[in-house]
Amino acid sequence: MEHVLPVQVYYEDTDHSGVVYHANYLKYFERAREHLLGVEELVALWETDRVGFVVYKASMTFKEGARFGDQVDIRTTVRLASPYRAVFVQRAFRGDALLVDGEIELACVDGDNKLVKLPGIVRERLA
Amino acid sequence: MEHVLPVQVYYEDTDHSGVVYHANYLKYFERAREHLLGVEELVALWETDRVGFVVYKASMTFKEGARFGDQVDIRTTVRLASPYRAVFVQRAFRGDALLVDGEIELACVDGDNKLVKLPGIVRERLA
Amino acid sequence: MEHVLPVQVYYEDTDHSGVVYHANYLKYFERAREHLLGVEELVALWETDRVGFVVYKASMTFKEGARFGDQVDIRTTVRLASPYRAVFVQRAFRGDALLVDGEIELACVDGDNKLVKLPGIVRERLA
Amino acid sequence: MEHVLPVQVYYEDTDHSGVVYHANYLKYFERAREHLLGVEELVALWETDRVGFVVYKASMTFKEGARFGDQVDIRTTVRLASPYRAVFVQRAFRGDALLVDGEIELACVDGDNKLVKLPGIVRERLA
Repeated sequence: MEHVLPVQVYYEDTDHSGVVYHANYLKYFERAREHLLGVEELVALWETDRVGFVVYKASMTFKEGARFGDQVDIRTTVRLASPYRAVFVQRAFRGDALLVDGEIELACVDGDNKLVKLPGIVRERLA
Repeated sequence: MEHVLPVQVYYEDTDHSGVVYHANYLKYFERAREHLLGVEELVALWETDRVGFVVYKASMTFKEGARFGDQVDIRTTVRLASPYRAVFVQRAFRGDALLVDGEIELACVDGDNKLVKLPGIVRERLA
Repeated sequence: MEHVLPVQVYYEDTDHSGVVYHANYLKYFERAREHLLGVEELVALWETDRVGFVVYKASMTFKEGARFGDQVDIRTTVRLASPYRAVFVQRAFRGDALLVDGEIELACVDGDNKLVKLPGIVRERLA
Repeated sequence: MEHVLPVQVYYEDTDHSGVVYHANYLKYFERAREHLLGVEELVALWETDRVGFVVYKASMTFKEGARFGDQVDIRTTVRLASPYRAVFVQRAFRGDALLVDGEIELACVDGDNKLVKLPGIVRERLA
């Protein structure tokens, strides 16, 4: 099951070399994860239980740069690596062209910044 | 004629005080202007004629802060103030609540960074 | 009494037009205000009293763009407009050239997001 | 030989979870690389030869979050992996505490976006 989020490239995303600044793909990836997990569910987890997601590992390979005005599709798949960790394979495409290939590992922490199991609602969603 | 762009508030947009970082409303406003003017037209102007838009003046009043997970609507109206300047009245709303009230003046420059008249296609669109 | 903060322009600050993205001057201005007010004092106010500063109004006029590799000086003066509001006149220079002319009004809010008087330590500093 | 760049954490760097937004460490790392390589040299390479650096790979492990007001030291070592690639080991510390552990691979491209050898001035600097 692949989740797809289309992202528009704006002025704010580019740098003076003419393409999207490399760090911004981490922002695009996070937007996609939030939609995949459910924004309302994330807000509820935060407001009710003070449970938040933290990025534990991130790796990216950059193939080609997106430019102002491009539409980029963020394609995401995810698997539970353990009760504590979810691994997202996330790739940015412009049409059929792979621009960036990434893998992001998430964990959850409570209000005291202690590692906690991924919430049931998330584990069900990813199962 | 009012243009409306819905914007989702992500982690990247907020700061440690819990609300959207003030400078990011300028990003939201620019996204809205780009859609209003037409992203393809802006790309074509840039690639063909090296004509780009620059912000000449910006002012904002901040009433209330948007939070993670909110959907914010950017409501924009625009008028030609002269053949060289377009003035955008841009406001951010969460539902009926006005969050930020802004006014942005744009001008156009060519590849040598000289002020030029707003392109015909833009003046027609705004007329 | 003018406060000067030198800021280096990095890739992250520019956009594809070749100059610093307009919203980023608000970031530069905020960095300068934080140094002027005292970073440690701001942290203490936040951690002890949950008092934070919020931008109430911001206006900027853009004269010229800074480029990658430039050093920009943020020159700031400030006055107490009332027990609740501080007004910062903030300008970005490259050498003697004025790039951006800004005025930022700050207020303080408590942990319930209620307006409070500017803390004594701040009023003394600005007096 | 280790290069150290101190970085101040501002409001703009944090997100609503209270710590520095993960993508921003890529910005900190790039600032450090620019100082290590020499900002003036990078500007000259770009303006004279249209040669720019691109990030080819990036990986990070996040241990602990920096907070508003922290000073973070970016510690960088670098080696030439080939005539075309430089590998930077970059770590963010708060005092003695390792916050983020990263590795960034850079390559160079010319004005047509073609891969070119790292410039002599860079290879000398890194040798």
